[in-house]
Amino acid sequence: MLVDGVPHRSIEFRQQDQSVHIIDQTLLPHELRWVELHSLADAAIAIADMQVRGAPLIGVTAAAGLFLGAKQDSSDDAITNDAAKLQATRPTAINLRWAIERVTTAVLKIQPPSRVDWLWQTACSMADEDVTANKSMAEFGLPLIESIARKKQSSATSDTVNILTHCNAGWLATVDWGTATAPIYLAHQHGIKLHVWVDETRPRNQGASLTAWELGKAGVPHTLIVDNAGGHLMQSGQVDLCIVGTDRVATNGDVCNKIGTYLKALAAFDNQIPFYVAAPDSSIDWTLAVGVGQVPIEYRSDAEITVMRGRLKSGGMGEVEIAPMGVKTCNPAFDVTPARLITKLITPRGVCAANREGLLALFGDRLS
Amino acid sequence: MLVDGVPHRSIEFRQQDQSVHIIDQTLLPHELRWVELHSLADAAIAIADMQVRGAPLIGVTAAAGLFLGAKQDSSDDAITNDAAKLQATRPTAINLRWAIERVTTAVLKIQPPSRVDWLWQTACSMADEDVTANKSMAEFGLPLIESIARKKQSSATSDTVNILTHCNAGWLATVDWGTATAPIYLAHQHGIKLHVWVDETRPRNQGASLTAWELGKAGVPHTLIVDNAGGHLMQSGQVDLCIVGTDRVATNGDVCNKIGTYLKALAAFDNQIPFYVAAPDSSIDWTLAVGVGQVPIEYRSDAEITVMRGRLKSGGMGEVEIAPMGVKTCNPAFDVTPARLITKLITPRGVCAANREGLLALFGDRLS
Repeated sequence: MLVDGVPHRSIEFRQQDQSVHIIDQTLLPHELRWVELHSLADAAIAIADMQVRGAPLIGVTAAAGLFLGAKQDSSDDAITNDAAKLQATRPTAINLRWAIERVTTAVLKIQPPSRVDWLWQTACSMADEDVTANKSMAEFGLPLIESIARKKQSSATSDTVNILTHCNAGWLATVDWGTATAPIYLAHQHGIKLHVWVDETRPRNQGASLTAWELGKAGVPHTLIVDNAGGHLMQSGQVDLCIVGTDRVATNGDVCNKIGTYLKALAAFDNQIPFYVAAPDSSIDWTLAVGVGQVPIEYRSDAEITVMRGRLKSGGMGEVEIAPMGVKTCNPAFDVTPARLITKLITPRGVCAANREGLLALFGDRLS
Repeated sequence: MLVDGVPHRSIEFRQQDQSVHIIDQTLLPHELRWVELHSLADAAIAIADMQVRGAPLIGVTAAAGLFLGAKQDSSDDAITNDAAKLQATRPTAINLRWAIERVTTAVLKIQPPSRVDWLWQTACSMADEDVTANKSMAEFGLPLIESIARKKQSSATSDTVNILTHCNAGWLATVDWGTATAPIYLAHQHGIKLHVWVDETRPRNQGASLTAWELGKAGVPHTLIVDNAGGHLMQSGQVDLCIVGTDRVATNGDVCNKIGTYLKALAAFDNQIPFYVAAPDSSIDWTLAVGVGQVPIEYRSDAEITVMRGRLKSGGMGEVEIAPMGVKTCNPAFDVTPARLITKLITPRGVCAANREGLLALFGDRLS
C-alpha cells in the first residue's frame, strides 16, 4: 500500500542484491524505520521483539530468516537449528510453526548447494501468495461496500460509507493489502467515499499505532476512537458496516479475534449493522467444530495494561505507569464472537455465511 | 471508606477548626495527597482542575466554596460573585449548577452575620445527605449480591461472587460509599466473598486510576481489565453480575453513563448476567421521557485519547503520545443503555424495574 504516495510492502525482497527489508513496527506510529535483515538472528529478533507481527507477515519473515541462515550454512544441522530458533521466538504462534515446518521439510529434501536459491524463491512466493489472497478478499469484499455506497447516495444525509474496524488487520499485519482493510483500500481506490472508525484496541493499541497510521499514509479518511465508543456510534447511526480480521475461524463460523471484537459484534447486531469478518484460508481451523468455549485464549502480561509506551514531549520514546502499583490484572488477548452475530465471512474464495454449510461451499476440497 | 484501615470521606469537614479538606484526585493512583481548601478560589480550582470530580462531590465542594468565600465577605454581591465563579468551573455540569443555585438562593434570604455559620451547616448537611443516600443504595443492593452468593455456595466451582463495574462510581465520586460500589462495600463488610472486575475505562482511565485504587485501599479483592475484556469474561462464566453508576436516567429507564457502558450491558444481556444500575435521586431526569437518541452526548478533547498521563520510571508524572501525530479523533464521553438491557435500578428508595412504572412506584411524589 501507499506510504506518502510510494507503494510498499511490509516485508520487501529486493531481487538485485537478494536483500530483505522490514519496517520496525515497534516504532510506529512515531517513526517509519526500514531495517535490513542480515542474518537468521536478525529475523528471529524481528519476530521475537514484534518488529514484525501478524500471522502472515511472521510466516514470511521466518522463511526469509531460513534463507538468511542458509546463506551462512545450508547443512541439514544448520537448517534444523535455525528452524528451532525461529520457532522459539513466538512459541504459541501456530501459523509460525506451520510456516517453518512446511519450508524446513521441503528444503531438507533438496541438495545443499541449491537450498539458498530455493529458500529465496520460496520466501518471495509466500509473500506473493499472501498478497494474492488478500487482493482476492479485497475484490470479494468490494461489492459489500459498493452496495451500501449506492444506498447512501440516494439518502438525504451523508453519502460517505462509515466502516468500523478493530485492531490491525491491515497491510502491516500481512505482506500487503491486509485482510479486513483489503476491501477498504480497494473501495478507496475505486473512488467510493468512505471513512473508517479505528478502535484504538487496548491493551496493545494496534489500532492507534498501526491502523490509523497506515490509513493515514494511504490517504483513507479515518477517525481514531477508544474501544468504548463504538456502541454509541452504531446506536446513533454513524456506522454503516464493520469489518474485522480473525486469528481462527471454527467450522461452525465462530470467530476468534482480538479481545473486544465480540463486544462490537453485539453492538452491530443490536443495531442491525452488517458485521463482516475477513478470513484468509490459514485462519480456518478445520479441526475445530465450535469456537465459543473451545478456543484456548492466550493470557498476556500485566505490563500491557499497566504501562503505556509512547513518544515523550522531548521526542524520545518513554513509558508511563497508569495503574496502582502492584494491581492485579487479567489480560486475555482474544475473544470468540459467536457465528450468529456475523453477517458473512469474506474469504479469498468468496463471501460465505458464517456456518459449516457456507464454509464447505467454498472450501469443500479441504475436507475431502 | 477505609484507606489503609482509616475511614475517610472524599471531602472532610473538620468541626474543630471549620476546615475543609479534599483529596487531589489528579494524583491518584500514584499519590494520596490531602489538600486543605482555604478560599473560594481554592474550591473553584479544585473543581476546574478535577482534583474533585463526580456530581455529588462537586456539588458539596461548591457549597464548601461558598462557605469559604462568605468567611471573607458575606455580602449579597460577594456571594453572587462567588456563585458565578463556581458555576464557570464546569459549565456543563448540571448538578453543580443546581447545587449552587439551591444554596445561593437560600443564603441570600438570611441576614449576613448568620450566613457563614449557615453555609458551614449546609455544606456539612449536603455531605451527610449524600452519604445517607448512598448507604441506602448499599442496603437495597446488598440482597442482590447475597442471593447470588447463596447460589454460588451450593455450586461445585467457586463461591466467590464476581462483579464487573465500569468507570468510577465509587466513594471518590461521591462523599462516601459511592453509588455502584456502595452495595459492593457493604457486601464486603458483611463478609460475602466477592471479587470485582474493574474496567480501566478509556479514555480517562477512571477505573484504573480511581476504582482500582479505592478497592485496593479498602481491601476488596479486584482485578484490573481493559474495556475490551468484559465480553470474554462474561461469555466464559467469570462474571456473576454487573453494577454501574449513571449520570442521567430517563423516565423510561434508559440510562446515560460513561462511554462503553452500553457494550457491557449488551454482553451481560447476551450471557444472561444481571446488569444493575445504581441511580441516586439526582440522576433521574423527570423531564426526559426517552434516553436513547435524546440525551445530548458531550464530546471531549483529542488529547484524552492521544496522550496518556502516568508515572515515569523516574518517579515523577509525565505524558506520552500514543497515536499518529495530528490524527483525527472522536471522543463521546457518554453513551445510553436502553432500558431493555437493564435488570433493575438500585435507588436510595429501593430497587425497581428500569421503566416508568418502576420509577413511579418509588418516586411517584416527584411527579405529583
